[in-house]
Amino acid sequence: MVKIAVDAMGGDNAPGEIVAGAVMAAQSREDIQIFLIGKEEVVSEELKKHTYKKEQIEVVNATEVIETEEPPVNAIRTKKDSSIVVGMNMVRRGEADAFCSAGSSGAILVGGQVIVGRIKGVERPPLAPLIPTEKGVSLLIDCGANVDARPSHLVQFAKMGSIYMEHVVGIKNPRVAIVNIGAEEEKGNALVKETFPLLKECKDINFIGSIEAREIPHGGADVIVSEAFVGNVILKLYEGVGATLISMVKQGMMTSLRSKIGALLVKPALKTTLKAFDASQYGGAPLLGLKGLVVKTHGNSKRIEVCNSILQCVTFKEQAINEKIKESL
Amino acid sequence: MVKIAVDAMGGDNAPGEIVAGAVMAAQSREDIQIFLIGKEEVVSEELKKHTYKKEQIEVVNATEVIETEEPPVNAIRTKKDSSIVVGMNMVRRGEADAFCSAGSSGAILVGGQVIVGRIKGVERPPLAPLIPTEKGVSLLIDCGANVDARPSHLVQFAKMGSIYMEHVVGIKNPRVAIVNIGAEEEKGNALVKETFPLLKECKDINFIGSIEAREIPHGGADVIVSEAFVGNVILKLYEGVGATLISMVKQGMMTSLRSKIGALLVKPALKTTLKAFDASQYGGAPLLGLKGLVVKTHGNSKRIEVCNSILQCVTFKEQAINEKIKESL
Repeated sequence: MVKIAVDAMGGDNAPGEIVAGAVMAAQSREDIQIFLIGKEEVVSEELKKHTYKKEQIEVVNATEVIETEEPPVNAIRTKKDSSIVVGMNMVRRGEADAFCSAGSSGAILVGGQVIVGRIKGVERPPLAPLIPTEKGVSLLIDCGANVDARPSHLVQFAKMGSIYMEHVVGIKNPRVAIVNIGAEEEKGNALVKETFPLLKECKDINFIGSIEAREIPHGGADVIVSEAFVGNVILKLYEGVGATLISMVKQGMMTSLRSKIGALLVKPALKTTLKAFDASQYGGAPLLGLKGLVVKTHGNSKRIEVCNSILQCVTFKEQAINEKIKESL
Repeated sequence: MVKIAVDAMGGDNAPGEIVAGAVMAAQSREDIQIFLIGKEEVVSEELKKHTYKKEQIEVVNATEVIETEEPPVNAIRTKKDSSIVVGMNMVRRGEADAFCSAGSSGAILVGGQVIVGRIKGVERPPLAPLIPTEKGVSLLIDCGANVDARPSHLVQFAKMGSIYMEHVVGIKNPRVAIVNIGAEEEKGNALVKETFPLLKECKDINFIGSIEAREIPHGGADVIVSEAFVGNVILKLYEGVGATLISMVKQGMMTSLRSKIGALLVKPALKTTLKAFDASQYGGAPLLGLKGLVVKTHGNSKRIEVCNSILQCVTFKEQAINEKIKESL
């Protein structure tokens, strides 16, 4: 039985889509138990709309909610009865194997470190979202709050990312690359130059060298290693360029009668294509290296992404990822 | 009379498109003189295909060519008779006001510093390409070779970028922002946190604060300040995501007969839209802060971009940008 705590109050579509996603996950597998954390009366009311096995879903009352704009350190410290703090405490005490939330990124990153805590030996826990590429998905590690990283951090990110990609996402012998401004070993800033030879020495990863940002969307590597500032820029620019281009394509197709008619005809095919390239579709980004698992689900996630995030947690537990991480250190 | 040295041998479409672009520029304005630098017989042969005023275009012989894959420092040192070294020496000696090249970026960055030299007081010369946005273009400064920048460098980049954007591109009181991973002043890595208050104090720029990468394609600022590693990642990811999405849109439209017919109808409108979002269209990126001007034109530039780069140099000279930069320091 895998036990998963789910923040029923976090994200743009809470609690409706979160509760619906939890029910979907419970319906799809009998061996999971879900704790829906949030204001009891609100969450129970939502749950009534669904049919599910009572023993699989339990509501855990949490009277407070951390808003996205709240300063995270303070929010975690003061809102002891918020869904994020209550859920993370369940993971810390071993009452849940994992915690999923579409709520405040900052609070999740802070809470993961101070409440759940790091695996012994892990220097910093990275946030590792999956990003879409031409060939499927790649893991971008780190996009979290670890600014001004050191080479040893990046080496750990590479190892943890590689384990996750192989055993949770199912990519055999994943190609690991470090983000750089040129393909040659001597290129880059001080951090990359120091990290490069360390990654080359790692026997347990399939390090393929540097990757230029241009090659990321083409699927040039499975695990994209970078410090958090650059990772964050990559993640957000991905979203920004994608959104802008899609809106320009739509506008472009509305410029003449001819193209308007064409637009009607291409619309269904285009919708499928563009959905595949929407970073938010991949939902859950794990915060790796913690005693337990914390997954940050995209703020605008709908039920299907919430369900996928929960099922990701199951694979994480089944594949004993944290044990593999401990061995790799 | 503005005198511009043009590398006739650099870029994917040299010498044909470079020579054609130089002729276009000469035809459009009588007050410019162009020196086409390269293998004399090759360049003269190309020139014969065009009609132009003989006094406006002169071929300057340079027997060597620096290839893009050559290590730049060594290439600049040993290939004294290459088009890049000959052209930059003309700027150094004051025989030309500017030098344009679509050749090796590395060699142009190195040559700019060691041959042309920095304006007194400029700590590092940034490379500042224009990138397309929903609203027009923004200047991304720095995308050059200055890794591990210091706060004082970024402040100079902001000032130089602001001057360029106002007087060459024609944006009144350009909005200057620093790339960051959140909008708040306390966010960011050490470099950004140190630079932020310095930019806030600058009286001569219109500093609007942090910009998240997501907002760049929406045109959230006119001058986007960042150190070169991050700038380079932004520039290349822009190209990569754009190229990938466009190819996926094309593929998506080929999936059914219905969408194929639609594709034929939307094609012309879409082509115009997507061209507007192609970073290479904006051709010339100035290397600012040098005694003279060096412009790096995109490697795959065609005649129109080459011509635009040359005309950019004219505006640069007419607007006395270097004098304005000196005053700002």
